[in-house]
Parts: sequence; C-alpha cells; structure tokens
Amino acid sequence: MNQCKSILEITHISVKDIRFHTSKNNTGSDARSKDPDYSCIYIQVYTTDPQIIGIGTVFTLGRGNSGVHAIVKEQLRHIRGLSLDYIITNFNALWRNIVNDGQLCWNGPEKGMLHQANAGIINALWDIWAKYENKPVWKLIVDLPPDKLINTLNFDHIEDAITKDEALHILEAVDKKQTDTNIGYPVYLTCGWSGYSNEKLTTILQQSLKQGITGYKMKVGNNIENDCKKAEFIRDIISYDNMLSMDANGVWNKEEAITNMNKLKQYKPYWIEEPTHPDDIISHIDITKSIYPIKVATGEQCSNKVLFKQFIQNKGLSIVQTDIQRLAGINEWFVVMLMCKKYNIPFCLHSGGIGLVNLGVHLCMIDYMCISQSTEGRYAEYIDELTEHYKYPVQLENGKYKPPKSLGFGVELKEESILEYEFPNGKYWITTYGKKVIKDKEWVL
Amino acid sequence: MNQCKSILEITHISVKDIRFHTSKNNTGSDARSKDPDYSCIYIQVYTTDPQIIGIGTVFTLGRGNSGVHAIVKEQLRHIRGLSLDYIITNFNALWRNIVNDGQLCWNGPEKGMLHQANAGIINALWDIWAKYENKPVWKLIVDLPPDKLINTLNFDHIEDAITKDEALHILEAVDKKQTDTNIGYPVYLTCGWSGYSNEKLTTILQQSLKQGITGYKMKVGNNIENDCKKAEFIRDIISYDNMLSMDANGVWNKEEAITNMNKLKQYKPYWIEEPTHPDDIISHIDITKSIYPIKVATGEQCSNKVLFKQFIQNKGLSIVQTDIQRLAGINEWFVVMLMCKKYNIPFCLHSGGIGLVNLGVHLCMIDYMCISQSTEGRYAEYIDELTEHYKYPVQLENGKYKPPKSLGFGVELKEESILEYEFPNGKYWITTYGKKVIKDKEWVL
Repeated sequence: MNQCKSILEITHISVKDIRFHTSKNNTGSDARSKDPDYSCIYIQVYTTDPQIIGIGTVFTLGRGNSGVHAIVKEQLRHIRGLSLDYIITNFNALWRNIVNDGQLCWNGPEKGMLHQANAGIINALWDIWAKYENKPVWKLIVDLPPDKLINTLNFDHIEDAITKDEALHILEAVDKKQTDTNIGYPVYLTCGWSGYSNEKLTTILQQSLKQGITGYKMKVGNNIENDCKKAEFIRDIISYDNMLSMDANGVWNKEEAITNMNKLKQYKPYWIEEPTHPDDIISHIDITKSIYPIKVATGEQCSNKVLFKQFIQNKGLSIVQTDIQRLAGINEWFVVMLMCKKYNIPFCLHSGGIGLVNLGVHLCMIDYMCISQSTEGRYAEYIDELTEHYKYPVQLENGKYKPPKSLGFGVELKEESILEYEFPNGKYWITTYGKKVIKDKEWVL
Repeated sequence: MNQCKSILEITHISVKDIRFHTSKNNTGSDARSKDPDYSCIYIQVYTTDPQIIGIGTVFTLGRGNSGVHAIVKEQLRHIRGLSLDYIITNFNALWRNIVNDGQLCWNGPEKGMLHQANAGIINALWDIWAKYENKPVWKLIVDLPPDKLINTLNFDHIEDAITKDEALHILEAVDKKQTDTNIGYPVYLTCGWSGYSNEKLTTILQQSLKQGITGYKMKVGNNIENDCKKAEFIRDIISYDNMLSMDANGVWNKEEAITNMNKLKQYKPYWIEEPTHPDDIISHIDITKSIYPIKVATGEQCSNKVLFKQFIQNKGLSIVQTDIQRLAGINEWFVVMLMCKKYNIPFCLHSGGIGLVNLGVHLCMIDYMCISQSTEGRYAEYIDELTEHYKYPVQLENGKYKPPKSLGFGVELKEESILEYEFPNGKYWITTYGKKVIKDKEWVL
C-alpha cells in the first residue's frame, strides 16, 4: 500500500437519480415487467484524493429509484468521514452496522430496497480501496492474502453451512499460480426479450454468432406454445452447437414449471432460470429433481446469504446466479461463492441492467482465480445495451470477457450521460417529449 | 350495500410522515434495535363521501419512513380515481397489479419496504370498504359470503399448499352462528424490553396483573446469563400461573438457539419467538424439532405467503405471527391463515409498533369467527404505548381484547398528534430540542 496516501478519508458523497428510457424499444421486457426503464441510483463517494472517487450503483426498473434514493441518503451516515484504513480494518463490523441499521432493519431485514441500497454503498467502498491500490477490484481481491480477505466477510447465520475456518481453508488451498490472469471468460447473450420482433431477434443472433458468442438465453413464461415457437426459431439460427438457456422470471408455479419444461426440453435448454417464485426454496428442490438433467438456475432475486444457504445446502439450484447489486456487496457475495465451492455448485453470472455487467466481470475473475479455478459449464451473462454510457465498457474478445483493466469496478458513467439522463432535470427529461413521458408514466417528481 | 352511495370514488390521497420520539424512553429496544423511534407513513385516501376516508399505515423504526414515503407516493397511481365498486369487483387483479408493479417488482419482489408500502395502500382500501358498509373491518369480513370473500384472495405460487377450492370449502364449513361476536380475546403483554430497568418492569408487570392480563413476553438474545436472570425476575412476579414467552429477534444462529433454549426452558416459556434469522426456514424446522415442547413462533418478519407456505407445510413454526403491515394487506394475510387452518397451526397476533394493535384486533376477530373458531392456546400481543395518539384505542376488558366497534380499522390518529409529530414540520420536531434530536440522529430532511 502506498504509505504517503495512507490518510485517505471520505470527504463528501453525491447521490444521483439516473433514468434511461429503455421502455421506448422494449429492452428488458419479460413475463413480469412490461415497460422497464433501466435506471440506477449513482453514488459518488469523494475522498481526500481527488483522483479517487468511489462509485456505487443500485439498479432499478425506473420508479424504483425513488425509494432507493431516499434510503441511500439515510444510510450514508454509516460511511461519512471514514478513513480507508478504518474501513479495511473494520470491514466486517462496518458491513454489519450498515446491513442491520437499528432504525431500518425492520424494513428488510436484509432484503428488498434496503439491502439493494446497502449494496451500492458497500461496493463504493471496495471501489475506493481498489483505486487506492491502483488496481481493478478483481485484482485487489486476488492479491489479498486469505487471512486479510476473510476478515472482510461475515458468517452470521450461515455457520451451519460454512464456518470461517472452513472458508479460510478453501481460500488457502487455491494455487493462484495455476490461473490464467489473461483468461477469456465464456459469455451468453440474453436475447429474445418478450417485446422483441423476430426480425430484431434474427439480426441480434446473427451478429452475436459472428462475434463468437456461444451461449444464448431466451425469455419464457408468457404462453407455452409461443415459447416453444420462439425456442425453435432461435435453435434454427444458433443450431444445437451453441448453448441455449431459458428464463421464466418466476411466473410459473411448481406444477407449471415441471409441465412446461417437459414441453421445452426438446430444445435442449442448458438451464431453466427462475422456474418459480424466487423465494420458494422447497419448490425449487422438487423442480430440480423432476427436470434433471436440465439444470435449475436462480439467484438474481435471492435476497441474502441465509436464503442462498438453504438453496445451496438442499439442492434447490444447480447453477447459482448472484446479483451484486442485491446481495450487500462483495462481502456477502463472496461467502455465497464459498458455500458454492463447498457444495460444488457452479456460478453463472447474472448481469444486465445498469452497471451489473461492469461489476459482474470482476465477479467472474474472482470466482475463477480465487475460488473455483474453473470456467467449465460456466457462462457469464452478457448484455450490451447501455454500454455506450460507460467510460470503461467491458471488453469482449472472440465471444469471451477479458479481465477488466480499469481501476476499481470501472463502473463510471460518462459525464454527458449523467447530464442527459439525470432525473428529473437531465437534458432528456426536460424536453417536451421527456416531460410527456414522465407524465404518462405517472412518475413522482 | 347502500345503493345511493354506490358511486363512491377515490378523489385524492394524502401521505404523511409521522415520527414519535420513542427512543427517548427505550420503548421498543431489543437485541437488534437500540434506539427505535416508532414511526409511520400515514395514508389518507379521500373519497367522494367526505365521511369516508380510508386510512393505511406503514410502521417503521424512524429513518425507515423516508424510503417508505417515496415508494407509497409512486404506488398511489394504482388506486387514484378508482371506484369502490371497481375495487370490490377486481380486488384480486388490483392486488396483483400493485404487488407486481412492473417498474418496482425488481426491488422486492414481495418483500421489504416495497411490500410494506403496498400493505398500507391495500389496507386503506379495506378501510374504505368497511366504512362504506358502516362496519368495522372484522364485521365486514365476517358478513361477506365465502364466494365473495374468496375472490379478493390470491393463490399464486401457493396452490401446492392450498387451492382456491380447498380454501372455499374451509370458509363454507364454518358455522358462524357458533361464534361469540362479543368475545373477549386473550392477550399477552410485551414487557422486559432490553432497555427497561427492573423498577420500570416491576411497575408494568404489577399493573398488568391487576388488569387481568395472563400472558407476558420478554426479550432475550443479548446475553444468556442476563436473559436467565430476567426470566427469573419476571417469573417471581407473574408466577407460573401466567404465560411467559420469549423473543430473540433472530439474533441467534441455529446452534445458539437450541443451546440457549435448553438453559431457558427451566422458566417454562410457552414459545420462543424468532429463535434465528427470519428467512431461515430449514433451521427453524430443526429448532422446532429440537426444543419441543417449547413452541417456535415466527412470522412478524416473514415477507410473503410463499415463505409462510414453506414454514407452515414443513413444520418450521408451531405458532404463526403475521404482520398486517408487512404482508400485503388483509388479502395476503387471509390466505396465510387459511394455510394455517389446513395445517393446524394456531395464530398468535404480532402487534406493537404503530397501528398494529388497532389493525391486529380485527385479525383476531376474523381468525376466531371465520377460520379457526377457537382461542385455545392463542394470545394476541398487547402493547399500550402510543395508544394515546389514536382516536379509537383498542379496548381491553379483564385482560382481554373486545371486538372493536369503530368503523373500518379504527386506526385514525388524533389530529393534534399529527400536528405534533409530523416530520419534519410538526410542533415537536421544530422546537430547539426537536431539531437537536434530528441532527443527532442524522435524519435526512
């Protein structure tokens, strides 16, 4: 660590509401969200070093920003004025204070908007730490000695699945010299959103195949006959040489999930994602048994490590998909991955939304280099919408993710995108058209 | 229904942030919340009839109000301008639209602040309906024919535990003539908050015994030796003739819960409440088995019917404690109670906070008169703090709740209490002292 900068402290914090009008072209539409406007609360944590600004983002589908914004502002009290030294030394205690805030915990606990807001704040701290070390977040973590890393992690209420000692042994057993730090990490493309036309879908698939992308995912869950037709349509273009998965966004009940997957299995899906309600651990256990060898993937809406523990211990999933803006930051994500390692569950990155791609690439690298040391059967979700708004878009090479080189998470939005899409006073939203959209959507100002 | 009023419509809606400074005297302090300031978002839904204003409340511990306030305002779009006729006819579809709002569902789903905000809005609609019928909510529901009541309920994702047809049969099998509509419903008092002195506790217990209250609950979970001493202290006053339960507020892990309850069992607790993390269904199943015959009670932080389904089907609890400001209104609470009936789990009302007592009495009456027809082994939580702020405080007679007579839920705050405690401009908060409290608490204005 650079000693001359060792008194780095948080000076002030800015919180912005950013909303992109993605519902205009149906991006993100699925069985449940018909008109999502990909949005985020964008947290900028300034420090005594003007070059080091920690960024945290919290993804919502538009109106969700209002609630998250209010919560983030309340929770900043936990980090104002802290030194990086204090954060690093006390990260677990600080994490616990933020997550269990005495006046907010009733409105979770550890779930929903509150936990998502906390995720944004906590990840901004990792961003500061990595920038201070002049490293991407994945490299910071790969370089941390296991005994230092373990002290940032929290094992409350999961000790029956994994203890701190077991976790340390897992970390210590990894021979990092065996990993390829310039790895290409396989990706899949989420295409076939509910609102896309066949023409649009064809264009996207053909372009992606040319790019070398070998994995694809389609949305299901509106109407089983249409789902079958769409699967056939996609298989005709991508053939059976590429991976195709399916995502029901939780709209089926247990029986429907089993029945419908029996109809869809002819298209050889690698996994079905969220076949039923994301909180229904017991039904997931039954579905996983019933539709074998199709894998059951879930986790993007799994709120916390305690719920993940139950899915992982009891075979309620066969692929884990964590969301780094839903779990309370790297600290909580990491212990979920350690449970996966112990119980032999592969990680396939959930991504999309805003900033999830940027943060997600780091998770892939960390899982590969510090935990699983494998990419077998693993695919990271790749969605390229909105990347034009990022200063450091993720790099895809021959259909694979490259380890990011930008410092921290590299999740900085471009200044001009912030000026354009900040809500409600960005350039886009103050036009006559923008104002009409706000009015039609009944967004609260 | 009164035909001449049949065009009742929602005209406008007011949403207020109300905060009481309860941390001043440690009310509500427990193992996790050291300085709760009981607060609520107070929703007033005005109609074309000036006599009919639907009230909905969402309880928080203070700062939580900021987030809930923002969400409630976004969600009002679902009910603006609706007629009561439309609401009654389409209550299930309306419930589903509110709960699964396409731009907010990502920030749940069905949990946390979002679900709590929805609860407040949905219960305000029941309040309107009951007031229109000139009845308390419990009486409205008791008088509804089963085939009409069932259409307000939602069975999505719980059909594997109970179908709509099964539910209807349960409702039709109840002979309401067998119920005592003037029943006295047994209560218990939550005393022994973490922050209370022995002197204060003694006074409260002695007064309550004189009132005829036969059930008591103490907080545990800070330090097991202190917990044992406090249990002994309370048993010395209330003797073993009265019911004593314990509440750990989820701070233990599974092993600690079993070990500590083995130490506390000498004080013969009727139940242990939230022995571990409220989302940990599997650990609750193990604890329930291990500490029999002490009952395991949980539910006040159980987010939705899908989680309750798993607890109920798999014996993860032996007493169910729903929170009517956490589940999305009477509609969701009712299906949870129907599952309890089918699986033979008694309901003991969770209460406290703000407005929960007022709403809760209705739940007791509905459970007794429409579903279980029993009060055996059932105790409703009684907390008398803050009742002075309500126009229609609940009536306790010989240590038992009386069926409320006020219209709707009777959850109206007194005008002077609103003027005093509205945040941040109520009379209490604009004093020099109030401003200092706000500053010390770092509440965001």
